[in-house]
Amino acid sequence: MNEMKKIIVAFALLLMIIPAEEILAQKATWIWYPGDYDIWLSNKMQNRRTERGAFYPPFWRLYSHYNLVDFYKKYDLPEGDEVEIFVEGDYNVKIDGKLVSGRPGKVSIPGGKHELHLKVYNQVAVPSIFVRGKQVVSDGSWMVTYEDKEWIDDSGNASDISANPWLEADHRNFSDPRVLPSAYKLETRPEQAKSTVQKEKGWLIDFGRETFGYLSFHGLQGSGKMMVYYGESEEEALATTTCETLDEIPVNKEVAEDMTLIESRAFRFVYVVPDPSVRFGSVSMFYEFLPLEERGRFRCSDEQINKIWEVAAYTLHLNSREFFTDGIKRDRWIWSGDAYQSYLMNYYLFFDSPSVKQTLVALRGKDPVSSHINTIMDYTFYWFLGIYDYYLYSGDKAFIEKYYPRMVSLMEFCLNRRNGEGMMAGLPGDWVYIDWAPLDNKGEVSFEQLLFARSLETMTICATLMNDRPSASRYGKLADDLKAKLIPAFWSEEKHAFVHSRIDGKQSDAITRYTNMFAIFFGYLDSLKQHGIKEHVLMNDQVQKITTPYMRFYELEALCALGEQDYVRREIKDYWGGMLNLGATSFWEKYDPSEKGAEHYAMYGRPFGKSLCHAWGASPIYLLGKYFLGVKPVAPGYRQYTVEPRLGGLEWMEGSVPAPLGNVELSCNQKEIRVKSTVDGTGTLRFKSLTKPACKTAAIRKSGENEYEMTILKNTEYLVKYKNAE
Amino acid sequence: MNEMKKIIVAFALLLMIIPAEEILAQKATWIWYPGDYDIWLSNKMQNRRTERGAFYPPFWRLYSHYNLVDFYKKYDLPEGDEVEIFVEGDYNVKIDGKLVSGRPGKVSIPGGKHELHLKVYNQVAVPSIFVRGKQVVSDGSWMVTYEDKEWIDDSGNASDISANPWLEADHRNFSDPRVLPSAYKLETRPEQAKSTVQKEKGWLIDFGRETFGYLSFHGLQGSGKMMVYYGESEEEALATTTCETLDEIPVNKEVAEDMTLIESRAFRFVYVVPDPSVRFGSVSMFYEFLPLEERGRFRCSDEQINKIWEVAAYTLHLNSREFFTDGIKRDRWIWSGDAYQSYLMNYYLFFDSPSVKQTLVALRGKDPVSSHINTIMDYTFYWFLGIYDYYLYSGDKAFIEKYYPRMVSLMEFCLNRRNGEGMMAGLPGDWVYIDWAPLDNKGEVSFEQLLFARSLETMTICATLMNDRPSASRYGKLADDLKAKLIPAFWSEEKHAFVHSRIDGKQSDAITRYTNMFAIFFGYLDSLKQHGIKEHVLMNDQVQKITTPYMRFYELEALCALGEQDYVRREIKDYWGGMLNLGATSFWEKYDPSEKGAEHYAMYGRPFGKSLCHAWGASPIYLLGKYFLGVKPVAPGYRQYTVEPRLGGLEWMEGSVPAPLGNVELSCNQKEIRVKSTVDGTGTLRFKSLTKPACKTAAIRKSGENEYEMTILKNTEYLVKYKNAE
Repeated sequence: MNEMKKIIVAFALLLMIIPAEEILAQKATWIWYPGDYDIWLSNKMQNRRTERGAFYPPFWRLYSHYNLVDFYKKYDLPEGDEVEIFVEGDYNVKIDGKLVSGRPGKVSIPGGKHELHLKVYNQVAVPSIFVRGKQVVSDGSWMVTYEDKEWIDDSGNASDISANPWLEADHRNFSDPRVLPSAYKLETRPEQAKSTVQKEKGWLIDFGRETFGYLSFHGLQGSGKMMVYYGESEEEALATTTCETLDEIPVNKEVAEDMTLIESRAFRFVYVVPDPSVRFGSVSMFYEFLPLEERGRFRCSDEQINKIWEVAAYTLHLNSREFFTDGIKRDRWIWSGDAYQSYLMNYYLFFDSPSVKQTLVALRGKDPVSSHINTIMDYTFYWFLGIYDYYLYSGDKAFIEKYYPRMVSLMEFCLNRRNGEGMMAGLPGDWVYIDWAPLDNKGEVSFEQLLFARSLETMTICATLMNDRPSASRYGKLADDLKAKLIPAFWSEEKHAFVHSRIDGKQSDAITRYTNMFAIFFGYLDSLKQHGIKEHVLMNDQVQKITTPYMRFYELEALCALGEQDYVRREIKDYWGGMLNLGATSFWEKYDPSEKGAEHYAMYGRPFGKSLCHAWGASPIYLLGKYFLGVKPVAPGYRQYTVEPRLGGLEWMEGSVPAPLGNVELSCNQKEIRVKSTVDGTGTLRFKSLTKPACKTAAIRKSGENEYEMTILKNTEYLVKYKNAE
Repeated sequence: MNEMKKIIVAFALLLMIIPAEEILAQKATWIWYPGDYDIWLSNKMQNRRTERGAFYPPFWRLYSHYNLVDFYKKYDLPEGDEVEIFVEGDYNVKIDGKLVSGRPGKVSIPGGKHELHLKVYNQVAVPSIFVRGKQVVSDGSWMVTYEDKEWIDDSGNASDISANPWLEADHRNFSDPRVLPSAYKLETRPEQAKSTVQKEKGWLIDFGRETFGYLSFHGLQGSGKMMVYYGESEEEALATTTCETLDEIPVNKEVAEDMTLIESRAFRFVYVVPDPSVRFGSVSMFYEFLPLEERGRFRCSDEQINKIWEVAAYTLHLNSREFFTDGIKRDRWIWSGDAYQSYLMNYYLFFDSPSVKQTLVALRGKDPVSSHINTIMDYTFYWFLGIYDYYLYSGDKAFIEKYYPRMVSLMEFCLNRRNGEGMMAGLPGDWVYIDWAPLDNKGEVSFEQLLFARSLETMTICATLMNDRPSASRYGKLADDLKAKLIPAFWSEEKHAFVHSRIDGKQSDAITRYTNMFAIFFGYLDSLKQHGIKEHVLMNDQVQKITTPYMRFYELEALCALGEQDYVRREIKDYWGGMLNLGATSFWEKYDPSEKGAEHYAMYGRPFGKSLCHAWGASPIYLLGKYFLGVKPVAPGYRQYTVEPRLGGLEWMEGSVPAPLGNVELSCNQKEIRVKSTVDGTGTLRFKSLTKPACKTAAIRKSGENEYEMTILKNTEYLVKYKNAE
């Protein structure tokens, strides 16, 4: 024990707050084969979906954890150690290759060089260990393998990989050895109903806004059944024959008792219809949530936009659960395209890296790859794009290193499905989705090739990081070749736009917004083509309109990238404000202003099929953070970043954007910009001013007509006086 | 219901034996994704190993079942049907794509064309269904997939495959919907001890011969613990500090009760040492076994050989459990090389095809392949050889069709590991085993190339069966190329033998028996080389002797193939008779006649490490059936077969060899051969006679000097008078 530790321990003992053991073992955590817990937990989460009482599992392939895993670590201990052992699964322990008798709960490891092995079998849950001595603790430095190959002399075992530790995920408590990983649950807190009203056959309870959790009955008594109909709207809860979720609760209680339901559900309204022989006193709920800190903030002069930001943040938080889900009422599945937007919003609200990583790993599954992620071609590409952004925002190279082999095999799956032109067209079993909209996605769809090119660029970056030069060069060439084909294959000079697709070598007539808007913020086009698209596609009402917040996300992003913040501000107020005007307390899966009343709740041919709390509805968080506050990384992990505030017609705005470590705090009006950054990196503030700007604490450089920039250093406050010239 | 069925039902009702429902639904069985139950059950079985109370799992990769599976079937029903539904897992039911509410235990399917889907999720055990209506029943005609790809128009889904039914496996009861597949257990029956003797600290119980099962205590009473030490020998049971298996049983019973232990173990002797506060009246056991019928028989004029055959049959039966295991005391694992011999013996004792198939499937696991089967290179090849033989003996094309993709991927794994010479040398992670013997297996080992060539031949046959012509041609060429290299690379003209290996292009000096003996019965050599090997290797005491029954199996087979039955008879008496003389009640993992006393029990550096009941010890069953009775198939599934009796020095012999349907019954002495076959195929009897033979019921053809043959038809008795000229 080093001196500093001794002092800390002595201090703690003195205060009698923390037992010495806890401090010494503070690093111990449950560990397992990388990614396996995510796969296991995502199976559990995604198989919770029900539709009116029927079980409704995902329709894509699910993978399993490795059921037999060997954990090991080599030690060189200054002194002997008594080590406690906790395991989820059946197991044995070997010290220096020698089997310890039985299933020991504690072993003694002598001082000196020793090797500790734990081998665990578990078919039901993920083989996991928690080891805690004074020196020997389970953490991310352990190695793990799913086939130990005792017979090799060679120590280079390609399947060895460092185990996944969970200390980094603060919001998940895996530091208690008495709680098995499989017992993990989100947190809950009690919430009261806003109103309870008696109706014809039962009681309608309103919780005031969209929520998620476990309904709880107080003073429940009697014998019979009780029907519970959930509704994101009052109409849905009362529609007992068509509401999307319901529970049939058997009751058999002689004396009145409290009862909390076993399944958590999404709702604002609940309609409870008990048999006449069943009574209860009142109904409340336990709100179930992932305890994430909202590190991002946004406030501005427009109260409607402030409300939009808050409802968007709540919408994202409700959908940020064990993993990033699509929506809380219906699927509660992990959809790659939906999750991709949650990653991006997350960087401007929570910056919770574990949620991003866990979702990426759960989506990817394992080998062999036999179909696209979620069966959707574009969703495979969004997975790669998610990696691209995650590395840019977090700079987390360790994650890339751990999962590079799975990136390679997924990309090989794609490369093996190219046609003679080197492009990917839908093959049997592929769903070419893009958006909920009438689209003809036969043949070579330009949008898919664009995402494919970006995916190949991602692989080039990752291969380079991995020092896998032959692959980096191969992916780079594949990306270049494909990008070089995009204009000849899909660009129409006449229409100033990419066409939707090419079938049998012939461009289709259809122009859609998708390819055109992505090409802008991918930076694949020159300024002339960008402005052609803006005029002829994005701001052209003749081109089929987008009705999902999902694709509005990218449409508005493209407009922001073209400097149209003012237009985007008005669109946000109109579209998201439109939902608020209809009473939305969270943002929807789809919103068509032309619909009326309960029409808004219908989708998929069902009267309440639509989700009224859908992650992809929360995009204002991203747009306002990245394109109004204007903060974004330009080198991995915010080592370099830019701050380009754009008021877009607002009088003032202020807020905070989180980085992996630290935040960028910004406030801005037409005359002043205040910035303070605690980010571990170098920022560049860029702005437009009609007058020569001034800042007492930094040198301002002129970078163009009315354009200026200055460097932002960590922990320095800057006040810039200027005259906004957006 | 057709008329015949009506009559049967009426008849059954009359007899009041079987309810009508049972008869109508007689075809219903539990079904699951092909192979998944084998993988799941083999994980369960192989993880039962303990070593002195410590958990001892396999050291190779284990796979899992698909956890989310869709079962479906299209019907065209003359009338509506009420269908009972039983499921292992969470599930939903769709009729014509429409979800049935809840988890229905019964559904009504209207008459006409309909599609029934059951989708099942189960992480813990294998998703399985049992469906029983009058017309609609779960059986092997259902289709199943682990990813249903709802979004395809195209009905051609490559992952669809017909479900595995279990009706064919008579010895496993999967026809009761109330018993879940995961609850499957082998059968048991009570057995008494032969003697119980008080020793210093406890009681030594002798069950009279090697056995396997659950120890059962009668009148157990008191509070404390009871130690149980198991022994295949008396010495082992009494060696409380070194015996291989033991149980520590906590006892807490105020009144005397019976208690049967939870874990089944192998033993002949048990040493029970209770705390002084624990008492019991007596000890018996429940013998645990797979109920297989011994269809093969062998009797002869030599009583020692008869005893050897009986002990061999018992040894094989003890090791024929959920799968073919190596030995019952220690591993209880599925080792491909060991199992391969069990397949061959099985064809001459039980002819139980399910056991062969299930073992092959469990060994193969799933994709991706990342190491050799059991980590051993030769064991991968034995897997292919097992397929070769299984198809030859059973003619079961459906099995090949189902698992061809897994054959292809395993062979690709091999082909990717060839060196520049197109040969397979051990790479890091590979165990090149061959036999428990001092061997230098570096470089290109001739034995491995020989098995590799046979594996490629197997793939050629299977690809041809699958109508996969490009692959058949590719594998055929690869096999030919490799076979053409064997003589130039490994044959030594000087030594009249294959050398053991080639390192850096240079032949090693070592001659071992392995390659040489396999090359003979593979039929890869001309008669001159065969006899060179016989003289200079097989019958040359200077060449390192084989001490495992495992390789004695092939050594004696090669000698039989060369017509040395008389020599082999004497070897069997000497080697297996030698074990009997030492009191063996089952045959051993290894036997070295030069060892003394308890030396025989030691192996792996442990005093009782050796298994005294090892499947590979049972080879006389195979040798006596195939090379003495002389029955073997020459076309798949015994459609054609030969009967070539060789007395090998016996005065007379008689026995029976099972085929997929029917048996060949044979008796033979120096003057008469009697044959009767109930096999569905055409046999050819071949024999040598010094005089012109006679048979009243068949024409005898002369086929060489003193050599004759005649055709054997089904269900005809033949008596041939001759004068044996072996």
